[in-house]
Amino acid sequence: MNTAADFAAITSFVLELEKLKAVLRKNRPLGQTRFENTAEHSWQICLLAMSVLPHAAEPVDMGRVVQLLLVHDIPEIDAGDVNVYDATGRAAAEAKEEAGATRIFGLLPSATGAQMYALWREFTTGTSAEARYARAIDRMMPVLQNLNSAGQSWRENGIRIDQVTRMNHPKISGMFPTLWPLLEQQLQAAVTRGDLGPAGAE
Amino acid sequence: MNTAADFAAITSFVLELEKLKAVLRKNRPLGQTRFENTAEHSWQICLLAMSVLPHAAEPVDMGRVVQLLLVHDIPEIDAGDVNVYDATGRAAAEAKEEAGATRIFGLLPSATGAQMYALWREFTTGTSAEARYARAIDRMMPVLQNLNSAGQSWRENGIRIDQVTRMNHPKISGMFPTLWPLLEQQLQAAVTRGDLGPAGAE
Repeated sequence: MNTAADFAAITSFVLELEKLKAVLRKNRPLGQTRFENTAEHSWQICLLAMSVLPHAAEPVDMGRVVQLLLVHDIPEIDAGDVNVYDATGRAAAEAKEEAGATRIFGLLPSATGAQMYALWREFTTGTSAEARYARAIDRMMPVLQNLNSAGQSWRENGIRIDQVTRMNHPKISGMFPTLWPLLEQQLQAAVTRGDLGPAGAE
Repeated sequence: MNTAADFAAITSFVLELEKLKAVLRKNRPLGQTRFENTAEHSWQICLLAMSVLPHAAEPVDMGRVVQLLLVHDIPEIDAGDVNVYDATGRAAAEAKEEAGATRIFGLLPSATGAQMYALWREFTTGTSAEARYARAIDRMMPVLQNLNSAGQSWRENGIRIDQVTRMNHPKISGMFPTLWPLLEQQLQAAVTRGDLGPAGAE
């Protein structure tokens, strides 16, 4: 091991991560007018993951879940954030994210970079229980934010309840079957309040 | 388990965490003029932790290390961020952080809240190998940021090399004995460039 070369490579990688602090999402932190960035989002979903563990349908290794969540959005440094309800944008972003993962994790010493790339890949393909748990959490957080901000990003982007259900139900209800009905009730209440569009009203 | 009550408590907690996105530190993300917030800092140090594992002097459970890092600054929601070089401010913040930890983790269902509080306490007291690893990482990150930003927060706050060494050497060198000499060389170079104050020149 060449310690000096490895440390230089690690430094390049962590400084490259500064850029994720400038990748903006569609929601605004409660009480702030600016948009949320992907770095702080990545932190918050780890805490949500740690909080809802007693409600999971399957046992998971929480240390692995949070490591998946920590790396999962890093390729947005190259691909940008694409709204989950933007199907065309999502498809176009996939190749950019793959290239971004290769480039950014490639800044690290090779064994460490390969491990991080594998974590990113595991999240993206979603095969393990930990990846399915992490993917459910990534979807749950913005729903909770919107339910408690008068539907800020739903309103600003004209989102309807059938879109929210279609994109989130499959991922959330499998791992958190007792939580999804509670979310569904809250989504209906959000439609009643006018914070979320009614089904099919495009 | 009262699922609805627990989920409401979890929701209160994760929404309270939004406030950490508004707690500002002294350094500015590279390429941005704004200050870094504690939420995005908490994310970045987890990735640094995952990256330097091959250089650790002791074996650690990385899943635990990142969970310690994820929770360790949450009480700053109540206590604010205090610069590591501000000894008076640090002492005054300790009681506020203890009260903040009790309040904020107390928003969660009791068993989950107790687990998070225990993680915060473990980081703060620094007794386990994981806590010592996490504390070293928390110190290493701003040093790396300053070394690569022409000493931005060192310059803005009039920091000298003897302060940086005194505050960081004990925590970093124990867990990363081969990395500290590399940092020390870079600190000397920063003094030569004028990015960091020379020893003792108050």
